Amino acid sequence: MRWNELAEQECSIARTVAVVGDRWTLLVLREAFLGTRRFGDFLEQLGISRPLLKERLDKLVENEVLRRVPYEERPLRHEYRLTEKGLDLYPLIAAMISWGDRWMAGPEGPPLELVHRPCNQAIHPVPCCPECGEPIDARQMKVRPGPGRSQPSGVEAD
Amino acid sequence: MRWNELAEQECSIARTVAVVGDRWTLLVLREAFLGTRRFGDFLEQLGISRPLLKERLDKLVENEVLRRVPYEERPLRHEYRLTEKGLDLYPLIAAMISWGDRWMAGPEGPPLELVHRPCNQAIHPVPCCPECGEPIDARQMKVRPGPGRSQPSGVEAD
Repeated sequence: MRWNELAEQECSIARTVAVVGDRWTLLVLREAFLGTRRFGDFLEQLGISRPLLKERLDKLVENEVLRRVPYEERPLRHEYRLTEKGLDLYPLIAAMISWGDRWMAGPEGPPLELVHRPCNQAIHPVPCCPECGEPIDARQMKVRPGPGRSQPSGVEAD
Repeated sequence: MRWNELAEQECSIARTVAVVGDRWTLLVLREAFLGTRRFGDFLEQLGISRPLLKERLDKLVENEVLRRVPYEERPLRHEYRLTEKGLDLYPLIAAMISWGDRWMAGPEGPPLELVHRPCNQAIHPVPCCPECGEPIDARQMKVRPGPGRSQPSGVEAD
């Protein structure tokens, strides 16, 4: 399977991986969620090369995760802002932070804390069920074929 | 920055990305959460080459995301099971599914549905605040330097 075939796979994870599943892209998104908007700032924060950064930003714009917004007229300059589709990647970024904090942080503790403004607490978001409101544990979940599945066999995992 | 420096970065996302931030690894994890355990089954489900699959599985074992468990004595054969550290990646996998279902699924709808066993509903997990219980929106979150941050300046995003 080649990477440009990934987006066509009948799997939402494969389709997501096709857009954000590379390391620089995930770090570019991290910066965007930390408030970085300008090319030069991404460059400086990430220590990435110009062509690589340009490629990743262009791909995120093409996939409507970021949008280019002019911030200066003469000369014309753009910055990169998260779209709704991009902001909706927050659960993924939060899941990476939580897992990294729990399993990969050194004895000195996490380098950044996430604060929930409404209650002003440093937290790790937990996935919950929108129906019953309970926190979700991987062992409580199962999958079943959805409407977009053309081959409904062999996907049940119990 | 080289990839083997990523795990040493003072950033939980970078550390997570160092372990799971490549496309095949994410697809191997998807299969593991769908119940796949054996080398040959991963091979068949993913259409990956043997050396690539072996490398990814070995790395996940080395990082204690998967563990090798014997399932046959003569000849000795192993299968791969998620550890606690691996099961704790479920929020990340669920976040990828939810985003893919919302933004990348075709008109036919999602290929798989996630079912929360306790309430038996097909759901998309939502990140919640463990302190106040409310669903989290990216705009409600901010970051502040944590105990493991050696340079406490310039990380506040507002």
